[in-house]
Amino acid sequence: MAAANKKIVLRNYVTGFPKESDMELVATGTAPSRVPEGTDGAVLVKNLYLSCDPYMRPRMSKNDGSSYVDGFVIGEPITGYGVGKVVDSSHPGFKAGDYVWGMTGWEEYSLIKNPSKALFTIRHPELPLSYYTGLLGMAGFTAYIGFHEICAPKEGERVFVSAASGAVGQLVGQFAKLMGCYVVGSAGSDEKVRLLREKFGFDEAFNYKKEKDLSLALKRRFPEGIDVYFENVGGAMLDAVLLNMRVRGRIAACGMISQYNLERPDPVHNLTAVVTKRLRIEGFLVSDHYGKYREYEEKAARYVEEGKIAYVEDVAEGLENAPAALIGLFSGRNVGKQVVVIAR
Amino acid sequence: MAAANKKIVLRNYVTGFPKESDMELVATGTAPSRVPEGTDGAVLVKNLYLSCDPYMRPRMSKNDGSSYVDGFVIGEPITGYGVGKVVDSSHPGFKAGDYVWGMTGWEEYSLIKNPSKALFTIRHPELPLSYYTGLLGMAGFTAYIGFHEICAPKEGERVFVSAASGAVGQLVGQFAKLMGCYVVGSAGSDEKVRLLREKFGFDEAFNYKKEKDLSLALKRRFPEGIDVYFENVGGAMLDAVLLNMRVRGRIAACGMISQYNLERPDPVHNLTAVVTKRLRIEGFLVSDHYGKYREYEEKAARYVEEGKIAYVEDVAEGLENAPAALIGLFSGRNVGKQVVVIAR
Repeated sequence: MAAANKKIVLRNYVTGFPKESDMELVATGTAPSRVPEGTDGAVLVKNLYLSCDPYMRPRMSKNDGSSYVDGFVIGEPITGYGVGKVVDSSHPGFKAGDYVWGMTGWEEYSLIKNPSKALFTIRHPELPLSYYTGLLGMAGFTAYIGFHEICAPKEGERVFVSAASGAVGQLVGQFAKLMGCYVVGSAGSDEKVRLLREKFGFDEAFNYKKEKDLSLALKRRFPEGIDVYFENVGGAMLDAVLLNMRVRGRIAACGMISQYNLERPDPVHNLTAVVTKRLRIEGFLVSDHYGKYREYEEKAARYVEEGKIAYVEDVAEGLENAPAALIGLFSGRNVGKQVVVIAR
Repeated sequence: MAAANKKIVLRNYVTGFPKESDMELVATGTAPSRVPEGTDGAVLVKNLYLSCDPYMRPRMSKNDGSSYVDGFVIGEPITGYGVGKVVDSSHPGFKAGDYVWGMTGWEEYSLIKNPSKALFTIRHPELPLSYYTGLLGMAGFTAYIGFHEICAPKEGERVFVSAASGAVGQLVGQFAKLMGCYVVGSAGSDEKVRLLREKFGFDEAFNYKKEKDLSLALKRRFPEGIDVYFENVGGAMLDAVLLNMRVRGRIAACGMISQYNLERPDPVHNLTAVVTKRLRIEGFLVSDHYGKYREYEEKAARYVEEGKIAYVEDVAEGLENAPAALIGLFSGRNVGKQVVVIAR
């Protein structure tokens, strides 16, 4: 009997904080070895690494039409970014043996029907492949676009990054340092704060859970105010940041992880600062910018080779541990980029 | 004995809703007729029309350093935009008899020491001079810059304007109609709503005080969502708008009049929409754009001459009535642009 294709499926839509029991491991069908006859332009991918990302939380909820991403389908494998190896292809742009990253399924093998829209071939397979779930893939490119394009930073400006030890935050801080900015990050444990200072080279870092007054915590680190805020958390942190922004400051709204599990989002009181300080707050979606990805891939690969960028991953072993790894993001259990290894 | 120079001075800093008794009319000194000897580069202006604008409210509070405008000085005349006639000048750019608009005092005569920074000469004195407190001056230029530059509108887009019958709002709506947009406005009385529909040509308008659910009120008028929001009010309206914005929508944050009298600003809950819908929210200050004012002045003057723009003023007579006129803005008592006539 051929081996089954193991998958993680969503059992039900989620309200509030997700639980492991909202997902389950199922082993159905047969692990495929070929693109089915008559399926043109598809690739069969053996998944190696899966990426756990905060944006996946809204996909677990019933989509009321307001979200930017489609919801997951009950009973179907969860989808997300991952790294894999092409096993078979009926698409001229991909061939067996290619390493790829992009949108795949939480399963051992995925048949990708629109690979030119979903996948990028990996041009630097000599680097750790798992980096293409983060630094060299979506998270890294998100940090790059969000910081360089949306924040429009200038040398010497004062930059604040929340969730700063996460997949995106750790890179934003390092890109900002490479540009000659003053960079402060916040995170949710002393261990992460230490990473920010010692490994990622942030000028300053603090544990937001230990600060009674977030606005004062920022004022101490930014006595002259914040020029650029890279927003990953939302809620109370955003409110405190608004009080500390400088005139003509810019806020790239990359994510608001503190809000995704709340049925009623936290209040933000200080938006008049947008008027009085002429702020710009801008959301963005990395896939709108993929035209610049190859340029980024080369630049980031060079940074890695030259040791100019430090990168920390939190690696969970085995598809069966993927649900816990994903949920861990929302309590901040991960230290660095959360990856799941299916196969190496 | 020569006549005194009557002035409206601020008696005390204001917390909460301003009262007439926070200001007083005083008649001190002597109405000047010349720029004092030895004062180079100044002009003496006889003030004719004063402008009442929402941004003046924050100036009445003790400035904690976070505001974009300096506070008023206790015991000194209130300052604001106005229209006047140059009585005497020791500045080469101005001469007696010139009509000017710009930053002046709430008094019969003002000595302006930096006129090239504070004043514009009026190039269309054949048009109603009071229009230079609004349509042809700061408010009109604010509407123009805020809409055309900050909102970056496209023909056919769906535009929402709050406080839409006010000095800025009525013009934003008309600029949007001239561009071929679908335009909806909100206001605080049925009379104003009628003005929006019948005089200013808005496609739709509603009285926000009569709507139980602002989000539903918007959804009815924008079943496909809002592309552009011109923000004049803040608070609950902004929260409702965020729920109804379309992907890649733009919000020009011109003012938040509903918030200026609150000690604790209203909560806004729906900012995750900035991420999920890739919104841009941007504050701006019209004086950053004055390099384009002359181009606007010509365009707006032509609109007035050709009858392409309707414009409604609410005119209070006499300096003594200026405090009540200013305060009326915050309860929405004015219908259209609030002007105070000192002399014609």
